[in-house]
Amino acid sequence: MWTPSTPFAPPGTKLELEEGAGLTPKFNADGLVTVITVDHASGEILMLAHMNAEALARTVSTGDAWYFSRSRNKLWRKGETSGNTQRVVEMRVDCDQDAILIRVEQKGPACHTNRRSCFYRVVEQGADGPILRITSQPEA
Amino acid sequence: MWTPSTPFAPPGTKLELEEGAGLTPKFNADGLVTVITVDHASGEILMLAHMNAEALARTVSTGDAWYFSRSRNKLWRKGETSGNTQRVVEMRVDCDQDAILIRVEQKGPACHTNRRSCFYRVVEQGADGPILRITSQPEA
Repeated sequence: MWTPSTPFAPPGTKLELEEGAGLTPKFNADGLVTVITVDHASGEILMLAHMNAEALARTVSTGDAWYFSRSRNKLWRKGETSGNTQRVVEMRVDCDQDAILIRVEQKGPACHTNRRSCFYRVVEQGADGPILRITSQPEA
Repeated sequence: MWTPSTPFAPPGTKLELEEGAGLTPKFNADGLVTVITVDHASGEILMLAHMNAEALARTVSTGDAWYFSRSRNKLWRKGETSGNTQRVVEMRVDCDQDAILIRVEQKGPACHTNRRSCFYRVVEQGADGPILRITSQPEA
């Protein structure tokens, strides 16, 4: 049985990477892939984060979203302190396998500002350049 | 008038970055922010890419999606060779301003494999670990 300690195979040829059946993530120089997290029910994009091999393996094997925090330099299970956990409903990988897309059942807000999504500001054209308008407030 | 040559102001305090009205992107060590591109009509996630300050400024000022290619080390307007351009309908920024979300009108396929989206493979559990299943084929 495959376990989280099993390493991912290294990326193969371009054809294997793009059309093959093997999950062979192309981790960057810091050992990370980028992850887009989507609310399964609404389709809303909740957050963007990163996984290292261990976080990806744990996510695949447990069904809970695990990430790697670049600022804290540690592995974390989403919601382990806040309770705002994410159950993975579907996982996808992009053409060159350096980005992951997960659809999750999000408990509570996904953003550390206590908003549902991290993308709570829209960029608009102001007279002196782009300005940000807040479109959602922190949950009570 | 604001033009693409105007630089973005550097990120301010955490409060300004998270709750302020200023677009002050937190570019990484390579001078890039990560960009999620969504099909405005369907809500489908099309691709994940990067912008440097110049690409972001051009995207804001022209309404066409510009990116920075890490593999080719150059600025590019999406579709400039393929014709598969992206008109930006909405742009958002995340809490710490190191990720951008754009909703676009996508002409043709977004993926270089000629598929609508780059996320054309779902990760499934196989007996010996995760396997990828292709869910969409290249357009004719």
